Amino acid sequence: MLGTIELGYLGPQGTFSEQAAVEFCAKNSLYKLQDFPSIPHVIRAVEKGEIKLGIVPVENSIEGTVNITLDMLVHEVNLFIQGEIILDINHCLLTRKGDVEIIRTIYSHPQALAQCRRFLYKNFPEASYLTTNSTAEAAQIIKKCASGSAAIGSRWAAEKYGLDVYYENVSDYEINQTRFLIIGKKEFSFNKPQKTSLCVALAKNKPGGLYEVLEEFAREQINLTKIESRPAKKELGNYLFFIDCLADLSGEHQHVLQRLKEKCKLVKVLGCYSTLKEANALGYQVK
Amino acid sequence: MLGTIELGYLGPQGTFSEQAAVEFCAKNSLYKLQDFPSIPHVIRAVEKGEIKLGIVPVENSIEGTVNITLDMLVHEVNLFIQGEIILDINHCLLTRKGDVEIIRTIYSHPQALAQCRRFLYKNFPEASYLTTNSTAEAAQIIKKCASGSAAIGSRWAAEKYGLDVYYENVSDYEINQTRFLIIGKKEFSFNKPQKTSLCVALAKNKPGGLYEVLEEFAREQINLTKIESRPAKKELGNYLFFIDCLADLSGEHQHVLQRLKEKCKLVKVLGCYSTLKEANALGYQVK
Repeated sequence: MLGTIELGYLGPQGTFSEQAAVEFCAKNSLYKLQDFPSIPHVIRAVEKGEIKLGIVPVENSIEGTVNITLDMLVHEVNLFIQGEIILDINHCLLTRKGDVEIIRTIYSHPQALAQCRRFLYKNFPEASYLTTNSTAEAAQIIKKCASGSAAIGSRWAAEKYGLDVYYENVSDYEINQTRFLIIGKKEFSFNKPQKTSLCVALAKNKPGGLYEVLEEFAREQINLTKIESRPAKKELGNYLFFIDCLADLSGEHQHVLQRLKEKCKLVKVLGCYSTLKEANALGYQVK
Repeated sequence: MLGTIELGYLGPQGTFSEQAAVEFCAKNSLYKLQDFPSIPHVIRAVEKGEIKLGIVPVENSIEGTVNITLDMLVHEVNLFIQGEIILDINHCLLTRKGDVEIIRTIYSHPQALAQCRRFLYKNFPEASYLTTNSTAEAAQIIKKCASGSAAIGSRWAAEKYGLDVYYENVSDYEINQTRFLIIGKKEFSFNKPQKTSLCVALAKNKPGGLYEVLEEFAREQINLTKIESRPAKKELGNYLFFIDCLADLSGEHQHVLQRLKEKCKLVKVLGCYSTLKEANALGYQVK
């Protein structure tokens, strides 16, 4: 049975984004997955109403923020975060089936290459490294290449494209997770919201400005899980602050939001939502 | 006359890093430039003493932090920031001389493609986009390609590789600047330090922890120019904070550093330094 709600993800098939989308949809057929060539394509398709939901990476435990996702949510579209899902990332070195040549060229997404940097530097110091738009694209490319090529990608991609897993777990760090956001046009949460993502701009660029903003969270004993200053697209030195906190600022803590609005030039709530790490264990359903 | 101090930069020739290095060295021949294939190669060469100084990008006004630079300075090497230089970035669409074919493939570094995203989406919606390790590598590649290829790169790269500037200023944002750090083995500043970059880890992950850290800066009326939480390489949720402030914490404000050390589990000073935007106008010399 085909699903009835379209969920867009960063393709091609075999990406970690597809894996996150499949985990999000597991055990029900309410969703129909659709792949897009880039994160902006996913976000724009949701904005235009071509698809109902999108799933986009926002943060990796090693590489940090996926800037393009946050920037588009703040500057370019009016969408809301409805949930988040956290995926364990297991990078593998993939080769063509039966290829016994010395590996001379390694393809992958720049972030994947960066995450396996020490492993690659140690084992293939002489190889050439070529960047691709996704780990899955790297897998597609080596499928068609001459011998002696490899890709950094997932076991999932290896199965999808019929490749050998030459080495497993080649990431330089023991824990490697990526956080994905479910985004849609409505303010909505798949479960009782436990978390709020917001963006604030200070009224004046003066010492202690950010300190006064954080006072509102500290006073209520609200834990922050992320803070990041980002250029406000004007010049270096003019910043926006992205804040994630463990509270529902649309619900019981809406007075905090009110006080932030009094102190700041801009407060944009990107969403109040819950973590859907084990999505189906939490038993949400979309009607 | 050949320079006597070796300064490493992210090559190949024609990168914005080379341009920053040349601006840094302008009007004196104390320096000899050496190109490296990646940011980690530059940083490691300084650490091993193969070169005395390196120049590496750390932040772009649009794209945000260059994670790999900060991560290596904190986690992998024991080097110090000795100065910073800010470069205006003017992205151009480059083509082979006399090429009149329709542009079907556009090459560039992922950050450059991201910075020109709206321009490209509007003008070349059907083109393929291929990523390279640098804007200069993109220029090198199209030099050898069949007709119908273009690169996003600088006028500097166009001159270096004999390409046409097909469109100028194709960045989506009016102001586009990149901040580069000069790094070396010693604690040193090219001018009186006006700025400190540091990394701190909170003693406990509790509400208000960061608030208490910022209190030390607010109390002394010290302005922060950047704050960013970054995964501590363990799991999502355990963060380090990168802070840039407008004060010399090794000099007149060293008591602030002392108090931070009492409050935090880790305080690592990455450097106390000055901005060398108009490097030679400031008249520094390296002996």
